[in-house]
Amino acid sequence: MTQISVIGHKNPDTDCTLSAIIMADYLNKKGYLATPYIQGSLNKETLFLLEKYNIPEPVIVTQLDTNIDVCLVDHNEASQSIDNLTNVRVSHIVDHHKINFESNTPLFMRLEPLCSTASVLYKMYIEAGYEISQDIATMMLACIMSDSLLWKSSTTTEEDKVIAAKLQKITAISNLSDFAMPMFEAKSDLGDVSAEEIITSDYKIFEAGDSNIGCGTVETTSPDNILARKEEILVGMKNIKENQKLDFIMLSIVDIIQEINTTLVLDGKDSEIIETVFDSSVINNEANLGARLSRKKQIIPQLTEYFNAR
Amino acid sequence: MTQISVIGHKNPDTDCTLSAIIMADYLNKKGYLATPYIQGSLNKETLFLLEKYNIPEPVIVTQLDTNIDVCLVDHNEASQSIDNLTNVRVSHIVDHHKINFESNTPLFMRLEPLCSTASVLYKMYIEAGYEISQDIATMMLACIMSDSLLWKSSTTTEEDKVIAAKLQKITAISNLSDFAMPMFEAKSDLGDVSAEEIITSDYKIFEAGDSNIGCGTVETTSPDNILARKEEILVGMKNIKENQKLDFIMLSIVDIIQEINTTLVLDGKDSEIIETVFDSSVINNEANLGARLSRKKQIIPQLTEYFNAR
Repeated sequence: MTQISVIGHKNPDTDCTLSAIIMADYLNKKGYLATPYIQGSLNKETLFLLEKYNIPEPVIVTQLDTNIDVCLVDHNEASQSIDNLTNVRVSHIVDHHKINFESNTPLFMRLEPLCSTASVLYKMYIEAGYEISQDIATMMLACIMSDSLLWKSSTTTEEDKVIAAKLQKITAISNLSDFAMPMFEAKSDLGDVSAEEIITSDYKIFEAGDSNIGCGTVETTSPDNILARKEEILVGMKNIKENQKLDFIMLSIVDIIQEINTTLVLDGKDSEIIETVFDSSVINNEANLGARLSRKKQIIPQLTEYFNAR
Repeated sequence: MTQISVIGHKNPDTDCTLSAIIMADYLNKKGYLATPYIQGSLNKETLFLLEKYNIPEPVIVTQLDTNIDVCLVDHNEASQSIDNLTNVRVSHIVDHHKINFESNTPLFMRLEPLCSTASVLYKMYIEAGYEISQDIATMMLACIMSDSLLWKSSTTTEEDKVIAAKLQKITAISNLSDFAMPMFEAKSDLGDVSAEEIITSDYKIFEAGDSNIGCGTVETTSPDNILARKEEILVGMKNIKENQKLDFIMLSIVDIIQEINTTLVLDGKDSEIIETVFDSSVINNEANLGARLSRKKQIIPQLTEYFNAR
């Protein structure tokens, strides 16, 4: 049997972690010997789900065996991937993000603009005629809820809702809110988490033009608890910007109940960029970016366009 | 209804032309208003098929309307695409080549390492539950035969053979050789074709490292007819190399009956590169590259690796 390593992005979240586990199951059904991996410690939402549903935590790695093919899930850009990406052969990618990937040989790629990678995986199971067990269905539904914020994110599509309804039938989860709210509350419990961990727990670095951009998000049911630690977080952002040699950094505190994005930004050029790109005012390092709940759809494309045009 | 333009690569061949027509049919079934396009005049194999099966020739364009979404088929690299690629929104890609693509937003991508793009399209029809008409099945089978050279190319997979057998049932084409040989003979009829057209009729430009590489292939049942025009073709290659500011150019004459790749190459550095990369001797501007029938699998990855490492 051909071995294959399945791995999600840096700063793992629920969709990339559970999608690695689900894709490993799918590839095993296809006849591979697949192992899921994660790139770092998990956030409290994902830990809550692993514990509640008795799912084993994947092994943490920052590099992968170069003799074994690799499947990337929930990401495709080198900046979000394993450190030795250029030395492994990527044979599969399943994702729902913008693309920035180069290969020397043909590979399997399945990307769709759905709310979660698990939504794409659901379609792949159905197309292949594979049964979706109650465990796999629960994990898929958790990914969809996590990424769509219970349908509040603008990345939600009608197809995601149809998929969720089918998964509800398999799982016997009758009320999505009852299923999702404890996940969101677990994620919002950041009392014992350091400022730097808050910034990087759901964090993407990407390149646009000649610039390196760091873009963090905290999705929370309790934004005031985060904003009370603003000074400490701004110091953390300044440190990360210097250490990672970034040209720009921002952290969005997304209130998933009220649907408001309050973004923290450093003084000077970074504030000017936020004001230009999002037509917003920065006051005391805070900008109200309105209902921009989706970084993928409402933050990164706009920043990319700006930095590419500079 | 959302309009969408479907387009194949420069120097169109059978797979990219018919796959554009097939993908337009698929997208129409999905509810789009899709139009297939090609980027230049067709080779004799494709013209033979269009005439034999009474298929309308797609309109030739070098740019596309920037207000209409674009679907790329059978290619994804900018160097092989329309001239205004950076100004259009690519919403879909269906392909079977190596990947080198960047987007600002998520999109639909379906790539598989099968012998033809039409093989991937066959799977998409089945997965969507769409009926494959006799016309569409004949076009799919023509693409598979054209790209696999009647199973002689190393890009052929078991899955392609299973797909072809299913398409044979729809089309009532009982003998694949009887179906494919007239296509190959039509393509081999190059008596009235200029040397430059011979070089560029199935021709890819790609970047690797900092180098621009031109890589042509002539698949033929009569290699001697081409090699008799070697001097004229070498002059053409020199001109194309200068005009397109290439760092390297090669033309493979692939004998699809005997399964031998005889590659023409200019004197000097280009000859040295061929000798290094393919461990072959160049004599009188000719190198025997053995049974390397697939440029995608047996030429481009090796060149890419070499130029990337330089």
